[in-house]
Amino acid sequence: MDTLTDTAAQVAHGYITEKDRYLARLKRIEGQARGIHRMVSEDAYCIDILTQISAITSALENVALGLLDDHLKHCVAGAIQHDGAEVEVKLKEASDAIARLVKS
Amino acid sequence: MDTLTDTAAQVAHGYITEKDRYLARLKRIEGQARGIHRMVSEDAYCIDILTQISAITSALENVALGLLDDHLKHCVAGAIQHDGAEVEVKLKEASDAIARLVKS
Amino acid sequence: MDTLTDTAAQVAHGYITEKDRYLARLKRIEGQARGIHRMVSEDAYCIDILTQISAITSALENVALGLLDDHLKHCVAGAIQHDGAEVEVKLKEASDAIARLVKS
Amino acid sequence: MDTLTDTAAQVAHGYITEKDRYLARLKRIEGQARGIHRMVSEDAYCIDILTQISAITSALENVALGLLDDHLKHCVAGAIQHDGAEVEVKLKEASDAIARLVKS
Repeated sequence: MDTLTDTAAQVAHGYITEKDRYLARLKRIEGQARGIHRMVSEDAYCIDILTQISAITSALENVALGLLDDHLKHCVAGAIQHDGAEVEVKLKEASDAIARLVKS
Repeated sequence: MDTLTDTAAQVAHGYITEKDRYLARLKRIEGQARGIHRMVSEDAYCIDILTQISAITSALENVALGLLDDHLKHCVAGAIQHDGAEVEVKLKEASDAIARLVKS
Repeated sequence: MDTLTDTAAQVAHGYITEKDRYLARLKRIEGQARGIHRMVSEDAYCIDILTQISAITSALENVALGLLDDHLKHCVAGAIQHDGAEVEVKLKEASDAIARLVKS
Repeated sequence: MDTLTDTAAQVAHGYITEKDRYLARLKRIEGQARGIHRMVSEDAYCIDILTQISAITSALENVALGLLDDHLKHCVAGAIQHDGAEVEVKLKEASDAIARLVKS
């Protein structure tokens, strides 16, 4: 795992190296959202719709956890190593994002 | 609120009376998912993407809580009042759906 | 499962039949809380403390899901079957409790 | 906020500087747990117990978010600045702790 080498400085955001995988996952999530819309339009049973909502919520959480992991490894770690001035902002942003995820 | 009248028996699922509103909310959620996909494809900042993921997760949870409320008021309440045989199944389904929501 | 028989009417709350098990689980949770306090007082490593907080949070959620299941099967189902006047209040209480659990 | 000065190296864990406040909060949480046990033993109404469980779960989450914030600012930031060898372990531990919190 390339954490603190010079490339971290050039790679603006941690997720860039995994961008295609994130895009594929988000495309699937978009499809899940469309699927739930279709279930409601076709009067599907409430419990079946709820099952799909739990599934898409979990998928979104997993994307968020991946992005957060990348952010800590690259954006936060990079700021700490290369540019002390931004550290407090980066750390505060990360903690606030974690709080939103935990509380949502 | 029409909980246990005859119409409840005819209305297969609780959410049907609010169907258009659910469809509109789910269409917005689909748009949010597409928006997050676009943010990643345009190399948006990780924290901004995480903020949007928390927003769509909350929107999904609110749809789920609405569906669950309707389900309890109509499907579960209707089964209890009109057709005792299905009650245990309906109650178990509801509790399992609640557990999935709480744990997702 | 004794859902809607006369005993349900006498048993004020659904959990009464499982009371001893709930008390034992809550006593363990109290012990977990004391354990986390001790970890902090003994300068335990942050991650180890966080692991214990996730464990006690899950234990509390499971107790809550059990109480909610009992509440639906007895208090809500009983109100629907025996005393229509309280139904809307019971259903609203249940939905609000579910929302608090999902959002906490 | 003292993030990356020498004291961070001496302060083993981030939360040490706030230890008394964490101990006070955890003592209150232990009291809340005891209170819920007492509610069940006194046959309190299910919904009132569920309200207290949501309250203690939120209190625990807030303690966890504080510990995580301190951990990132001191343990993780300190490892990045002072001792590169531990960085990957510290970042992985932090991400795993975040995932447990989000999923619990």
